[in-house]
Amino acid sequence: MKYHRMVENSTNYQRQTTMSKQLWIYDTTLRDGAQREGLSLSLEDKLHIARKLDQLGIPFIEGGWPGANPKDVQLFWRLTEEPLSQAEIVAFCSTRRPHTTAAEDPSLKPILSAGTIWITTFGKSWDLHVTESLKTSLEENLAMIQDTIEFFRSQGRRVIYDAEHWFDGYKNNPEYALETLKAAVAGGAEWLVLCDTNGGTLPHEVTAIAKTVVTALANWGETSVQVGIHTHNDSGTAVANALAAVMEGATMIQGTINGYGERCGNADLCTLIPNLQLKLGYSCIANEHLSKLSESSRFISEVVNLAPDDHAPFVGLSAFAHKGGIHVSAVERNPLTYEHIAPEEVGNKRRIVISDQSGLSNVLAKARNYGINLERDNPTSRQLLQQLKELENQGYQFEAAEASFELLMRSALGTRKQWFEIRGFQVHCDKSSLATCNSLATVKVIVSDRELLEVAEGNGPVSALDAALRKALQNFYPEIAEFQLRDYKVRILDGKAGTSAKTRVLVESSNGHQRWTTVGVSTNILDASYQAVVEGLEYGLMLQQQTPSNSVILAESSL
Amino acid sequence: MKYHRMVENSTNYQRQTTMSKQLWIYDTTLRDGAQREGLSLSLEDKLHIARKLDQLGIPFIEGGWPGANPKDVQLFWRLTEEPLSQAEIVAFCSTRRPHTTAAEDPSLKPILSAGTIWITTFGKSWDLHVTESLKTSLEENLAMIQDTIEFFRSQGRRVIYDAEHWFDGYKNNPEYALETLKAAVAGGAEWLVLCDTNGGTLPHEVTAIAKTVVTALANWGETSVQVGIHTHNDSGTAVANALAAVMEGATMIQGTINGYGERCGNADLCTLIPNLQLKLGYSCIANEHLSKLSESSRFISEVVNLAPDDHAPFVGLSAFAHKGGIHVSAVERNPLTYEHIAPEEVGNKRRIVISDQSGLSNVLAKARNYGINLERDNPTSRQLLQQLKELENQGYQFEAAEASFELLMRSALGTRKQWFEIRGFQVHCDKSSLATCNSLATVKVIVSDRELLEVAEGNGPVSALDAALRKALQNFYPEIAEFQLRDYKVRILDGKAGTSAKTRVLVESSNGHQRWTTVGVSTNILDASYQAVVEGLEYGLMLQQQTPSNSVILAESSL
Repeated sequence: MKYHRMVENSTNYQRQTTMSKQLWIYDTTLRDGAQREGLSLSLEDKLHIARKLDQLGIPFIEGGWPGANPKDVQLFWRLTEEPLSQAEIVAFCSTRRPHTTAAEDPSLKPILSAGTIWITTFGKSWDLHVTESLKTSLEENLAMIQDTIEFFRSQGRRVIYDAEHWFDGYKNNPEYALETLKAAVAGGAEWLVLCDTNGGTLPHEVTAIAKTVVTALANWGETSVQVGIHTHNDSGTAVANALAAVMEGATMIQGTINGYGERCGNADLCTLIPNLQLKLGYSCIANEHLSKLSESSRFISEVVNLAPDDHAPFVGLSAFAHKGGIHVSAVERNPLTYEHIAPEEVGNKRRIVISDQSGLSNVLAKARNYGINLERDNPTSRQLLQQLKELENQGYQFEAAEASFELLMRSALGTRKQWFEIRGFQVHCDKSSLATCNSLATVKVIVSDRELLEVAEGNGPVSALDAALRKALQNFYPEIAEFQLRDYKVRILDGKAGTSAKTRVLVESSNGHQRWTTVGVSTNILDASYQAVVEGLEYGLMLQQQTPSNSVILAESSL
Repeated sequence: MKYHRMVENSTNYQRQTTMSKQLWIYDTTLRDGAQREGLSLSLEDKLHIARKLDQLGIPFIEGGWPGANPKDVQLFWRLTEEPLSQAEIVAFCSTRRPHTTAAEDPSLKPILSAGTIWITTFGKSWDLHVTESLKTSLEENLAMIQDTIEFFRSQGRRVIYDAEHWFDGYKNNPEYALETLKAAVAGGAEWLVLCDTNGGTLPHEVTAIAKTVVTALANWGETSVQVGIHTHNDSGTAVANALAAVMEGATMIQGTINGYGERCGNADLCTLIPNLQLKLGYSCIANEHLSKLSESSRFISEVVNLAPDDHAPFVGLSAFAHKGGIHVSAVERNPLTYEHIAPEEVGNKRRIVISDQSGLSNVLAKARNYGINLERDNPTSRQLLQQLKELENQGYQFEAAEASFELLMRSALGTRKQWFEIRGFQVHCDKSSLATCNSLATVKVIVSDRELLEVAEGNGPVSALDAALRKALQNFYPEIAEFQLRDYKVRILDGKAGTSAKTRVLVESSNGHQRWTTVGVSTNILDASYQAVVEGLEYGLMLQQQTPSNSVILAESSL
């Protein structure tokens, strides 16, 4: 019942095939992506990611391997109850075991129970794997592929066949590898996906081998079966390998958001989609969706709790950042001179970076971003640059802490308002042998000549300090109750100094509709945290006073 | 004088040209790599890197742009006083300014003063840049290229010509772009390096355009001039683009260690060298040097103070890590099934990863790594797996903290010796408004029924705690004086919880010849640090008792 309802709702796939040069993006972040070392996903995480991919217009989302993992079974149930709006959710599984029938293999029952229209089943292409891993005959492997797909087809499902280790298998025994594809076609697979499972293949090999497959399909008279590509980045060429296959006629591209995946990762869809769509003229997702790509990449990195790769192509925070003095002045005159695409097309932004290599022109350009007009001849400009370099020598970094940079500029210009003054703090932590570690903080704050001493507890020293500061300041600035700490990051600047190392703390704050980041540096992590928290509160108060238009710019620039 | 001495010593280049299929690796980590956002290098850093590259057998090392930066002038002086053993250090500069002569252009004097044999000069290939950035005529740009190179040649130098924005320039105006190369050849350049400055070019375009250049050189009768390639990763294809050019005949590959560089980085030499040498049969560096590649990559990431990319192809900590249950059992039977090269060839290692996806076979395989024989049927094995999953749910991660994992296994097996017992700690920090933040810690330790109360100060709460612990324990275990904290890392597990978030601390300890890493997790950063520091001390004491051979394995596995 549920299954048929899903079939009726799912016209997305058929509709899009009528478009020209259409490609099918197949996301496997939830399955292959989750194989990345250091990444593990809860059921809720998986649902968040699936809905985000759906909103991004990804047509196929691989949910997982039902039966192999209890979380994956639940995921399919939850998506049956609250279906995705556009995307097909796909169940993934191996072909049946040797020497049984697909109908009798208990491992295939949960796949059908997942209730998806589309099933991806993977089989062995490499003779070595058949004999060494499956420990069965080459003939039985062919039967396993064909029988499994036929079984799913007989149950009304549509099948994508993932040819595992395709390229290694083809290089080792091309005749046998092609036999496995023939078995998949005979079974009724609609896509044959060439997988570079070990990631060792280079682009020129993909070109040659994909061409052979396309030719073989034509020779077999199979015009309705399409080719797909699934690549890994062990040779640093996952994206180029996928592009090579598309240029030979592959129409399905399997990859993951941010290139997550085992070892060196899978092909990064955040790089592939703009390459295919903006440079090669293919159609993958709607253009209005493409402009959500950067935000989607960052959202998913937050869900999986991994720091985003600032240097990722297209979507990274630094992808359109200009640091060198020559570049900065040229890019201001004509963006085309130093940018391969317009950052807005993928929802990213141009940034002028302030660093100790910064010339005066970078500092002035940055000031203009904030609506602050600094003249080149103004002695304040040089003074600011000097101060900046000194602070960066101490370990401050303003690249990711633009709110602190603005406060610094306002200090130099004499336009920084003193909202409050803090006369130091004390923090105390006590851990008896079995209890949790309690923390207590006291602060002394002066606002409009009134002195206030406050104390608060927390589950750690920084949260106690934060609580005490807010408690004191809310007496004067009730809006502080709206401010939230969105993110708290700690970086040890010189790890080799061990526990005496300098610590840099970044604090991201929010007032519900704007976000800003501040920085603190000290050998004492509590002192560094204190600096960043205090500047975060100050900047939030300053934002409340500004015109809305100005604030929006600031908020965006700190995203 | 100095210059001629360098020429005589420099037979490296000539010697190698006689080898077959030789390629020339040209490292620009010190110049283009340093453009990466978040990276800045001191003079000493640059010297460390240059010497490491020299040891790795990289034939050309670009030192910087003398005159543009006082640090770079000093670098060349220092390298004249203490020359590299093998590599050519190269000075980088722009062509002369418009409407002067190279001999009269003051910006070229510091280039000669740098005293290098080789100079790389870059010129404009893209007509748009000539008119928009240089604001000069197309003819004058050709004169600038030829005149600059002729001038350096007249001073006895050898010249590499970097054709900036080559691919964009060629696409926009192929005739003019080829004219610029002709000017470089006329001036006497020995290499024409095709630069994809904006990183927007895709591999099939590199193939076509590089072919045109090679053909043009043949048509001009220039058989001694060679082609090079310099790519950026804005399209995620820097490595593939460089490979494409090599396959069309390019013999010089410019890139950076770990792919550092502006925006999305340069072509990563740590990926390119193994691809070229192990897969395509070219000769780049000696094989005994290739096996130092992983160590060199990690060394340089330490010097530049950036966390290494664990997922980097070939050299990343995860590049040969196996997590999925199927993979682990297969790779143990036959590494070829899931590894594209032998990790030892690039000085990396196979790793079995313990995570909440781990099956029992991973835990058993890992235990064998430590010389602990756990039987599959042993109830302890299942119990250990269960405990592991619970701890990982709390935020512990043993992937990078193998010493803590071993202590956990020893606990489960009843072979963990109790060296000491700690009865809690207290930490106090006090910051008055202008002073630095002082920290004081007290600990109570019990060893062999004796109780000891100790107190210590530190420049932060964790260093005070560490000092108090060592002070107490050294009374019983004087060898602790040899232990050093090599690295201290803090990760906020759920940044969104702000300062109340859970904190994971990793501590790397050393006894001078072995290194090991331990982990602690708590909402209280001091508690998390305390756990990791205490386990680090315990593990160090345990190591002292073990056989040397066993200890070496442990030390290597925690690198």
